[in-house]
Amino acid sequence: MNGQGPRILRLAMSQINTTVGDLEGNKAKIIAGIERARDEGADLVTFPELCLPGYPPEDLLLKPQFIAANLKALRDLVKHTRGITAVIGFVDRADDIFNSAAVAHNGEMVGIYHKMYLPNYGVFDEIRYFQAGTECPVYVINGVTVGITICEDIWYPDGPALPQALLGGAEVIVNISSSPYHAGKGYMRERMLSTRASDGLVIVAYNNLVGGQDELVFDGHSLIFDENGNLIAQGKQFEEDFIVADLNPDAVFRRRLHDPRRRQEKARYRPTETKKIVISTEPRKDPRPAFKREEIVLLPREAEIYKALVIGTRDYVTKNGFKTVVIGLSGGIDSAITATIAVDALGRDQVVGVSMPSEYSSRASVTDAQELAENLGIRLLSIPIQPAFDAFREMFGEHFRNLKENETEENIQARIRGNILMALSNKFGWLVLTTGNKSEISVGYCTLYGDMAGGFAVLRDVPKTLVYDLARYRNSIDSKGVIPQSIIDKPPSAELRPNQKDTDKLPPYDVLDAILEAYVEEDRSIEEIAEMGFDAALVKSIIDMVDRNEYKRRQGPPGIKITPRAFGRDRRMPITNRFSLELPIRTTSYVRRQYVRRRT
Amino acid sequence: MNGQGPRILRLAMSQINTTVGDLEGNKAKIIAGIERARDEGADLVTFPELCLPGYPPEDLLLKPQFIAANLKALRDLVKHTRGITAVIGFVDRADDIFNSAAVAHNGEMVGIYHKMYLPNYGVFDEIRYFQAGTECPVYVINGVTVGITICEDIWYPDGPALPQALLGGAEVIVNISSSPYHAGKGYMRERMLSTRASDGLVIVAYNNLVGGQDELVFDGHSLIFDENGNLIAQGKQFEEDFIVADLNPDAVFRRRLHDPRRRQEKARYRPTETKKIVISTEPRKDPRPAFKREEIVLLPREAEIYKALVIGTRDYVTKNGFKTVVIGLSGGIDSAITATIAVDALGRDQVVGVSMPSEYSSRASVTDAQELAENLGIRLLSIPIQPAFDAFREMFGEHFRNLKENETEENIQARIRGNILMALSNKFGWLVLTTGNKSEISVGYCTLYGDMAGGFAVLRDVPKTLVYDLARYRNSIDSKGVIPQSIIDKPPSAELRPNQKDTDKLPPYDVLDAILEAYVEEDRSIEEIAEMGFDAALVKSIIDMVDRNEYKRRQGPPGIKITPRAFGRDRRMPITNRFSLELPIRTTSYVRRQYVRRRT
Repeated sequence: MNGQGPRILRLAMSQINTTVGDLEGNKAKIIAGIERARDEGADLVTFPELCLPGYPPEDLLLKPQFIAANLKALRDLVKHTRGITAVIGFVDRADDIFNSAAVAHNGEMVGIYHKMYLPNYGVFDEIRYFQAGTECPVYVINGVTVGITICEDIWYPDGPALPQALLGGAEVIVNISSSPYHAGKGYMRERMLSTRASDGLVIVAYNNLVGGQDELVFDGHSLIFDENGNLIAQGKQFEEDFIVADLNPDAVFRRRLHDPRRRQEKARYRPTETKKIVISTEPRKDPRPAFKREEIVLLPREAEIYKALVIGTRDYVTKNGFKTVVIGLSGGIDSAITATIAVDALGRDQVVGVSMPSEYSSRASVTDAQELAENLGIRLLSIPIQPAFDAFREMFGEHFRNLKENETEENIQARIRGNILMALSNKFGWLVLTTGNKSEISVGYCTLYGDMAGGFAVLRDVPKTLVYDLARYRNSIDSKGVIPQSIIDKPPSAELRPNQKDTDKLPPYDVLDAILEAYVEEDRSIEEIAEMGFDAALVKSIIDMVDRNEYKRRQGPPGIKITPRAFGRDRRMPITNRFSLELPIRTTSYVRRQYVRRRT
Repeated sequence: MNGQGPRILRLAMSQINTTVGDLEGNKAKIIAGIERARDEGADLVTFPELCLPGYPPEDLLLKPQFIAANLKALRDLVKHTRGITAVIGFVDRADDIFNSAAVAHNGEMVGIYHKMYLPNYGVFDEIRYFQAGTECPVYVINGVTVGITICEDIWYPDGPALPQALLGGAEVIVNISSSPYHAGKGYMRERMLSTRASDGLVIVAYNNLVGGQDELVFDGHSLIFDENGNLIAQGKQFEEDFIVADLNPDAVFRRRLHDPRRRQEKARYRPTETKKIVISTEPRKDPRPAFKREEIVLLPREAEIYKALVIGTRDYVTKNGFKTVVIGLSGGIDSAITATIAVDALGRDQVVGVSMPSEYSSRASVTDAQELAENLGIRLLSIPIQPAFDAFREMFGEHFRNLKENETEENIQARIRGNILMALSNKFGWLVLTTGNKSEISVGYCTLYGDMAGGFAVLRDVPKTLVYDLARYRNSIDSKGVIPQSIIDKPPSAELRPNQKDTDKLPPYDVLDAILEAYVEEDRSIEEIAEMGFDAALVKSIIDMVDRNEYKRRQGPPGIKITPRAFGRDRRMPITNRFSLELPIRTTSYVRRQYVRRRT
């Protein structure tokens, strides 16, 4: 420590929306961030984990040419660090590749940190790609000692931040992160980071990514906690942001004099674990522009999830080079909320609805779809499917003779609609958004190549009961109430045969969703779920449906993860799978209702 | 060591075909193996890695009830080991879960080995699930010292087999394995295991799994090498087998006296790494039944791959509870070889062909499909698609007015065919096999929800040039030559518009496949591939097609991995991906031919 009086580290955190593989575009955003930070008088500017290659790059990391291009882009970036220190996520190559943070200052690389804790669970596969780092130095930046960590590193109570603070004397821990969103994760993250700060008696600055990448949404929500664990600055959720804060390392020193726990703890570590790299010892004395931050409050549940769906949809569509989406509007709640999200993501001119009524569509469904389209101000095409349905019936006449109509004919209709939407996609270059929700997709109450046909499944991870919550939320923030009340009120139906209702084959959605959450997200057993108050035979029939329909989900389009466990990279089940447990013996007297799958 | 004269360890290796999750079925196979081994007078019987839960169980391993059921099944199994020692793959639970080998003897558990090296690359995700083991004991079984290892353990030159042999005095190393097949892997495996045996001066007995599980095929090919690295016994490829061999540990001792390298090496290890667990010190004296083994020769390339496709198809169909498959027969080579494989896998009565001609189908295509069906002896349905195609044209009349017919109308036809096949599947419970090959799927020359619609993609990992090799091979082993020569000779065409040829949009398949192998399997750069002798602009256009069509592959059905790098769990690319390299500057003068994607 020096004795030169009050020190300040002005930190800028650049919460940017990058794109995987877009080295030039990501580089430009990083340069803009460095320049803005310099304009705001910052000593240090940080960027998210792997911001240069984009996150997660997946098997792009197996291409030597991708590693080389990322290193070349980094060399370009380093030149832009005149008069400032920047921490930039990239892929380092030494004897192996590492998930890394470059520390650049005045046009020079002054250090590279290699991530020490590699997540390999849930949606993460980092051990597939990276070697783990073994060193956690600290850097003296304008007289303030700073430890650099990457994402997962900070989720361990004895991760590198602890020796950095205890032994290296770090007054500030920077954590650059690309932490995927699920509903409610923000609270957990705040709680954890606050504890790390007060445990280490250290300022913790957490710089997260924002934006959508395939199934994942990154929610921003960058955070700074002081040495007491108090939140002192925060980035917006689901938007790019630029957070500037003046950090006070002398308060850290004062706090440490008052709290002697660290002296006990220090003895546990080998002093060789951290080394000190001095960039500059002099605190900046020049006058700097003032800044002020607005107060940010965490969004309530429905607003948060809705925003996640909007940004996830917008980024999937635009980052894949599309402008316009097309959606089949059935007059039901799922397609209504999907279209509303699409309008909020892309604008009304970039959303096309298609009404595809059949002989089984109710008059109300058709008019509800029309009213929705009018409320949203989107184009609505009408393409009745009867001619094609009649043609298929004729073509199958001989082959299906003497067989009763059943799910087969229901699926034919759904697949005619899929063909129509894909033909519009092919002819006009529109991306098809599918409308199925997580409840349907879980039990296979959907038609492969029918209503599952499309490029992106907005509601893939949204249970039906939450679909209703989102519809009510969206109507509540808009004086017009874009989603007609009749759509919210009517009983759900696929309308693929006369007087069909979802409850013909499924329990009510509040029951179904509770069982699905316990099974799909938490892997509870039949017995445990039954103990929550459900009929064990019903629970078993639902579980069997979930297991049996893995093959369908495997062929569905990607969608946005918003729960702790989404289908896809987050839940990797075999299709060929004979594991099924018998009902517990003491439940044999249950009424066995038949909830069989209807559509395939 | 004892000095009681010639010792023998009679080893039985049970090369079984298990099913993921089928604890009862797998248990029954293991019990049958133990009983047969006892009948054959074996001292030791081994089974493949994770044979009890099935391999790979994927996220079933996140279910406590699955772990518990597997432990219960193991307890049942142990009781069946009267008078014999058995090594059985299962999931152990201690403070965490482990990929484990149970060592059971005389109705008791005498030891548990935890896999030390967990693969987490290619198709493997074992660090997602398991803790790694830290101990590698040896077991004395009827006077012979045996080290147990699991799969990946033996692929490291300094894995547990080395201390087991050097320090623990193991005379035999058992490796229980579930090692997925790709073409040519057998030779690599033999070479590696032979080297391990001669490096360790130890007998190596490798017991592999056999059978199909979703994308993977396990090829059996269990092996025993003596202490000189000579092959002494071998299991069949792609079939269940039961291998018995008398191992001679005294030859191991003699060899070690002559080769002193191990004395140098021993000093490198801490002696605590291996402990000795004595099961029985007395060599068996009782007379045992004789056995003899037939000589097995590794299958030639086409025969090996063909067998892999047959077993992969059979196991996917039957393990998922289907009996019959349905295949669209276009008169082309892909559907011809797919149908032939299906007949070889399931029998002619369980294969249904469907001819779905359009106005663009040539007369020859229709008759070729008929001739193929006759040669195979399968049913052939005929469902011309014109009525549905006319209906779609009518339905789109207003919306597509003044627009030229293009890929859209081609895709509509393909999707009508997909709808027909799926309707037959729904009505009759047949599984649809798709017929697309790896070359098409790589560049997106296929229609999502059209010819890609189905449950299993037999040729998903088979390049087009190999499709021809397989057709010629299959005709060569059958006096009739089931695949009509005209199917092999005609230029490939999708027949979705007049006089269409694949080469309208793609280079010749020998060029395409060479580029695809370099890019998809080996991740070579444009420049490196161009240096192999290809036009750089062509290489770039192919690479762009591969990258751009990731979204289609993501929605395709699973298929059988037969190359070192298959699409799917083996190659995990982002859909949203802007990484593309410019052409190297020195290649700007190349003629830029247009190879654009045709179908979506």
